[in-house]
Amino acid sequence: MEIKVVRQIMEWNENCHDEIQKYLDDKKVFLINVMGSPGAGKTTFIKAIINNLRDKYNIGVIEGDIASKIDAEKIAEIGIPVVELNTDGACHIEAMSIKNILPNFDLDNLDILIVENIGNLVCPAEFDIGEHLKIAILSVPEGDDKVPKYPLMFTRSNALIINKFDLKDIFNFDDKKVENEVKTINKNSSIFKVNSVNQNGIREVAEWIEDKVKK
Amino acid sequence: MEIKVVRQIMEWNENCHDEIQKYLDDKKVFLINVMGSPGAGKTTFIKAIINNLRDKYNIGVIEGDIASKIDAEKIAEIGIPVVELNTDGACHIEAMSIKNILPNFDLDNLDILIVENIGNLVCPAEFDIGEHLKIAILSVPEGDDKVPKYPLMFTRSNALIINKFDLKDIFNFDDKKVENEVKTINKNSSIFKVNSVNQNGIREVAEWIEDKVKK
Repeated sequence: MEIKVVRQIMEWNENCHDEIQKYLDDKKVFLINVMGSPGAGKTTFIKAIINNLRDKYNIGVIEGDIASKIDAEKIAEIGIPVVELNTDGACHIEAMSIKNILPNFDLDNLDILIVENIGNLVCPAEFDIGEHLKIAILSVPEGDDKVPKYPLMFTRSNALIINKFDLKDIFNFDDKKVENEVKTINKNSSIFKVNSVNQNGIREVAEWIEDKVKK
Repeated sequence: MEIKVVRQIMEWNENCHDEIQKYLDDKKVFLINVMGSPGAGKTTFIKAIINNLRDKYNIGVIEGDIASKIDAEKIAEIGIPVVELNTDGACHIEAMSIKNILPNFDLDNLDILIVENIGNLVCPAEFDIGEHLKIAILSVPEGDDKVPKYPLMFTRSNALIINKFDLKDIFNFDDKKVENEVKTINKNSSIFKVNSVNQNGIREVAEWIEDKVKK
């Protein structure tokens, strides 16, 4: 499958978050913004979610990367429509890029559009891109001290996914501490502990997403 | 020990890289900029390097963080002069912040100043901060596909430290591939494979740094 690669145009800097959300509401497309550090496991998590929801929903993916189309290829392999968005160095996706890319999807026949943001625990948290849900992924090998160090990401996300949770003992990861810290700054955040590779805990996340899509 | 916390002033946006470098050359202080993703192990690596070099050199540390002083406390615990630089949300350290902080150190009695940049594989790579060496840390759990996805960091660094290398088999990490990719875009980069926790491989990095300091 040929993968469409689109570049983020930095000269065009329009905040069109509300406009995108309204447009997608009309089309009944639910947009999810997945964020996290490089290597947190965003692509594997997205594939696991797709695996759980593809029987009931038509799903598309926008893969954000500074460079390369490695992640888009992984999504195309499982037969899901995907567009690669290369930011050419920029550290986050802007709403205007999403607006620019939407015409590449058959929105009348799409239910869920998942955006994998740039691997970065900092900048993507600042920018709304038309999403209905923000999901933050923190992987166990990153350590259990990340909430006070990167507060905005955990404050603004609707859910925290603690990924690679099977490695908790190897990395001496205190998940109760992380949970308490997140609840203190963002009491409405849902928290899930998963292993995206073997799909442990993914079913619960998929059900939570489905619940939000139906509302 | 009371830890000095300084804030990055974003209104003051002066590129003073050359000025800082010249000033530090006069003072015979060698500045090292350590960069990498959240959780790559930057602080533990810096502590391991200090452990290897503190008998011969007077060392100071600037800890960059969006928020908190968790990392500065770890450095203060081992009796090393440290200043915490909080960027209040900004995704990288700017040269002006280093200029601003330098008077907090006794530069006449300092040989090496190590800066731990914000946990971010993207933005810090773009900004020179007066450093004599840029060191990029990539940890094995982040995966072996990071060089083509975040090329600037690996292009601009003088050395790549592959950290948590003892986990290579668990994460099926192809270090030869990473090495080849780095050498292709940055043939002068030194590459070290280490475990900062048990200090495997750290001696070689310390010797490499010592060699640069002496020049």
